[in-house]
Amino acid sequence: MYPKKFENLIDNLRKFPGVGIKSAERYAFEMLNYSDEDIDNFIQSLIDLKNDIHTCSICGNLSDGETCDICKDPSRNQHMIAIVQSPKDVIALEKTAQYHGLYHVLNGVISTSKGIMPEDINIASLLDRITDDVNEILIATNPTIEGETTALYIGKLLENKDVEVTRLAHGLPMGGHLDYADELTLIKALEGRKKL
Amino acid sequence: MYPKKFENLIDNLRKFPGVGIKSAERYAFEMLNYSDEDIDNFIQSLIDLKNDIHTCSICGNLSDGETCDICKDPSRNQHMIAIVQSPKDVIALEKTAQYHGLYHVLNGVISTSKGIMPEDINIASLLDRITDDVNEILIATNPTIEGETTALYIGKLLENKDVEVTRLAHGLPMGGHLDYADELTLIKALEGRKKL
Repeated sequence: MYPKKFENLIDNLRKFPGVGIKSAERYAFEMLNYSDEDIDNFIQSLIDLKNDIHTCSICGNLSDGETCDICKDPSRNQHMIAIVQSPKDVIALEKTAQYHGLYHVLNGVISTSKGIMPEDINIASLLDRITDDVNEILIATNPTIEGETTALYIGKLLENKDVEVTRLAHGLPMGGHLDYADELTLIKALEGRKKL
Repeated sequence: MYPKKFENLIDNLRKFPGVGIKSAERYAFEMLNYSDEDIDNFIQSLIDLKNDIHTCSICGNLSDGETCDICKDPSRNQHMIAIVQSPKDVIALEKTAQYHGLYHVLNGVISTSKGIMPEDINIASLLDRITDDVNEILIATNPTIEGETTALYIGKLLENKDVEVTRLAHGLPMGGHLDYADELTLIKALEGRKKL
């Protein structure tokens, strides 16, 4: 047995998703080489995580304040809201530099198999955000069964609202090869075909 | 971009060996679900790592005191010392419950390619430990080029000492198949063959 305190460290590292005992040990041994400064830095991150990292009270995105930088930014297009599953998806869309609207982060998807119901994710507050100012809601959940289910549910919910509801296009990924595409992607690409 | 403090957390998680940006993000998002108690527990581990986890002043093993539990244990066989590369190897040998002697942990191996010289690992203090009480030194470094180099170096160093120097046996691993064994292992198994 390792010293108790070292075992505790390993136990903490094992909590990460996909990390088994061997990896956790490897991380812990690597940490033995950390300088005091490295460790203090890590501790500070954890303190910040506990105290300062919240979800934005408006959109549900990650934020170190009450509201996130995007919600606070008056230069963003206030007439459009993209609905995404996770803060990771916000980053992905921001990287395109082609989307200038607001976001609404669900922090999850509806999943009957995992027992995640609409009330378990950040949907309720969405309805309050759809004022007369908002013209378009872009549903940008993942093209998976759960993402599609969630998209359909939200689409239904917004039926009577006076907004245009759109969905990200499905089709062949750029740089991909036709013969490597799965059947469903090809079907979507066919259905969505456009005039050249 | 994520909030600065969340980026810091990801940066800290990326320092683990073999962890890239995607895994670090995954860990960080998992940590968003931690309870305050989980985070406090993790912080305590890091504080302990900084303050209380040292190498044993006698053998070089991990310890949360000045000397490790094994060095402090008078019931261990004081006449035998096993030389291992890492505290992990101490755990491995302890699990066999067949070794009852003391340890000497090198915390590294001699590696010309990585520029690790004998003075960079915990060898010097080994010589002081070889008193008249000690009858056998078991060199249990890994059967790798670096482990063998280190074993040979230590063997040479102990030539004039009045102790028996032994090496762990090499051969086929138990439960293994002959046709899956590499050539070198088979050669060692042949060389070390024993009467049935």
